[in-house]
Amino acid sequence: MNAPPPRPGFGFAEKARSSECAARAGVFSTPHGDVPTPAFMPVGTRGTVKGVLPRDLRAVGSRILLANAYHLHLRPGEQTVARLGGLHGLMGWDGPILTDSGGYQVFSLAHLARVDDEGATLRSVVDGSEVRLTPERVVDIQRKLGADVAMAFDHCPADPTDRTAVEAATARTRAWLARCVARHREHGGEGAGQALFGIVQGGVFEDLRRASAEDAVAHDLPGYAIGGVSVGEDREQVRAAVRASAPLLPRDRPRYLMGVGTPADFFDAIESGLDLFDCVTPTRHGRTHSAFTSRGTVNLRNTGWKDDPSPLDPGCDCPACERFAKGTLRHLCASGEMLGAMLLTLHNLRFFHRLLERIREAILADRLSRLRAEVADAMSAKLSP
Amino acid sequence: MNAPPPRPGFGFAEKARSSECAARAGVFSTPHGDVPTPAFMPVGTRGTVKGVLPRDLRAVGSRILLANAYHLHLRPGEQTVARLGGLHGLMGWDGPILTDSGGYQVFSLAHLARVDDEGATLRSVVDGSEVRLTPERVVDIQRKLGADVAMAFDHCPADPTDRTAVEAATARTRAWLARCVARHREHGGEGAGQALFGIVQGGVFEDLRRASAEDAVAHDLPGYAIGGVSVGEDREQVRAAVRASAPLLPRDRPRYLMGVGTPADFFDAIESGLDLFDCVTPTRHGRTHSAFTSRGTVNLRNTGWKDDPSPLDPGCDCPACERFAKGTLRHLCASGEMLGAMLLTLHNLRFFHRLLERIREAILADRLSRLRAEVADAMSAKLSP
Repeated sequence: MNAPPPRPGFGFAEKARSSECAARAGVFSTPHGDVPTPAFMPVGTRGTVKGVLPRDLRAVGSRILLANAYHLHLRPGEQTVARLGGLHGLMGWDGPILTDSGGYQVFSLAHLARVDDEGATLRSVVDGSEVRLTPERVVDIQRKLGADVAMAFDHCPADPTDRTAVEAATARTRAWLARCVARHREHGGEGAGQALFGIVQGGVFEDLRRASAEDAVAHDLPGYAIGGVSVGEDREQVRAAVRASAPLLPRDRPRYLMGVGTPADFFDAIESGLDLFDCVTPTRHGRTHSAFTSRGTVNLRNTGWKDDPSPLDPGCDCPACERFAKGTLRHLCASGEMLGAMLLTLHNLRFFHRLLERIREAILADRLSRLRAEVADAMSAKLSP
Repeated sequence: MNAPPPRPGFGFAEKARSSECAARAGVFSTPHGDVPTPAFMPVGTRGTVKGVLPRDLRAVGSRILLANAYHLHLRPGEQTVARLGGLHGLMGWDGPILTDSGGYQVFSLAHLARVDDEGATLRSVVDGSEVRLTPERVVDIQRKLGADVAMAFDHCPADPTDRTAVEAATARTRAWLARCVARHREHGGEGAGQALFGIVQGGVFEDLRRASAEDAVAHDLPGYAIGGVSVGEDREQVRAAVRASAPLLPRDRPRYLMGVGTPADFFDAIESGLDLFDCVTPTRHGRTHSAFTSRGTVNLRNTGWKDDPSPLDPGCDCPACERFAKGTLRHLCASGEMLGAMLLTLHNLRFFHRLLERIREAILADRLSRLRAEVADAMSAKLSP
């Protein structure tokens, strides 16, 4: 319930850079500790990474966690979180935490949302009540939650290929960022122990992406994110949007690609100079009994694994691979036992963290393209019994 | 997947005995290690204690686990379990394991079962197919599963107060035990690394309980259980049944009271000389968001705990109490997050193990009645916010 006293300040130091691309290895410093980058941030929407004890997150390599300000505002509410020791107390986690603002929920829950220039009105997924979000309110909520990093309230357009809509959303994102920055300063800014990150929008349009990046950078913030990607556009369009924005983001600040992604996506983005990532993939796939391995993905519900005495991934040091056979994991999944989802979630998180650790080591040794050639093909296979 | 090589042999040594009652502290030795008694055995019906990693079981004080031969026979099947490293491999547990035989399922799934003198026919809860169980088959299944302790196949009567039915079931239990013992010897008996425990039946009738205990003891087995209690009769009848049977069971063998129970039940049974207990209570209550504490039970769905920053039980050293506020546990439970059930299960198991540890310490110091007076009343309260 009590987190140790935070160390002051935020920073980003580039430790090495690839000779072939914009990939870099760095360290993102926060009041709750340092994060070696590139880094993957497990998603703990409602204050818990589903099915994982905090100390096991630490053990599989998590260094920074994500939570969602909108969901926590709905339940249990930021006042309650503050009374329970803030988000670090709620999550039982003394490392860095980043809160997403709810901007993405306005997009993903669009059937429950209405956006205007002042803010957005959503219908609560908890009790159906109406919830009004404005840039100021979202900053207030996040300040109360007390994460190390708060995200600006942005407008992620419904269709990233509809230029008129994307232009309007990008302009709104710009205006809302200025209001978020002003409100965040009123709360004491970074001096109060919390960084505000700006978000780049612009859909699939490279000129809009560039303009949005320049808007954000003008605020001289401690970090920047690229948002509104992987929302329906194809993979080449995601890469183009990242390539258009990333070079405009300052080298001495962390760059966060929101909601991405899969092992192959990481290589693409890291080669463009991105540092931080989050995605529900490893945890959600774990709960639906699908595992990432160095030789491809494994569907543990497949009856063909029934009698298989080998571990999921022989080189893996996670609690699932250390102790359990594939046949046992298959039994747990087929029986609907919690332990199946728990073990596969831990395994997938370990796989994601270990992959980013290996990418970081490869950047430090300037052999990133070699690592990509070694691992990328193998990982994209689907393994059969 | 590989358990360390088991140490040979079974034994029970009484270390201390109360001067006021039949309570004793002992050590039950098995090929997979020693169990200080009295001891509580968490229930892992299908090869997993629901929602708990094996190493966390060890950490909260579990020394011996229970699994169910009938459920594992249905899924994944004893052949598969054997291929996956036996039950120790399946459970990822290198300590002692005891398997229940399926006799209780014939009772609890009575609407799916038909009993005759040869055995019982059940309808599978997995796929509806017909499953035939005989004493020999149940011993074969348990031999293949490879637990340290196999339970005899007994007949638990539907109504423990119907004397005619109880007499018939007790006679059947006697005949089946002789068949179990014969079959178990064919498999090599204890020399093959597995002990067979006999089960005392007899409903609420003290003379039948005594006769059944004498039947079982005549086989000179490495341990004995009292079954067919807590199946609908009142608490005084349970105590009478235990008191009638326990003194007839030899002092140099462990005595196991099946399916019991609650903190108050433990004191009753331990005072009659019982050593081993199992019950789904701590794990099932954990999943339904109810916690045992030193000051009474806590329903974590109660909205009154919403903002409570204190731990569930200040003196408890479990992962829930070490790191999380009651309000946080309430949030996790109210949100239906897996972590709520996981933490409360760990807490309840720690509470049960710690209680039996304290009882053991009290027996060693010959102050059991004092401990009972101190803790029993406090524990039976229901705490309100």
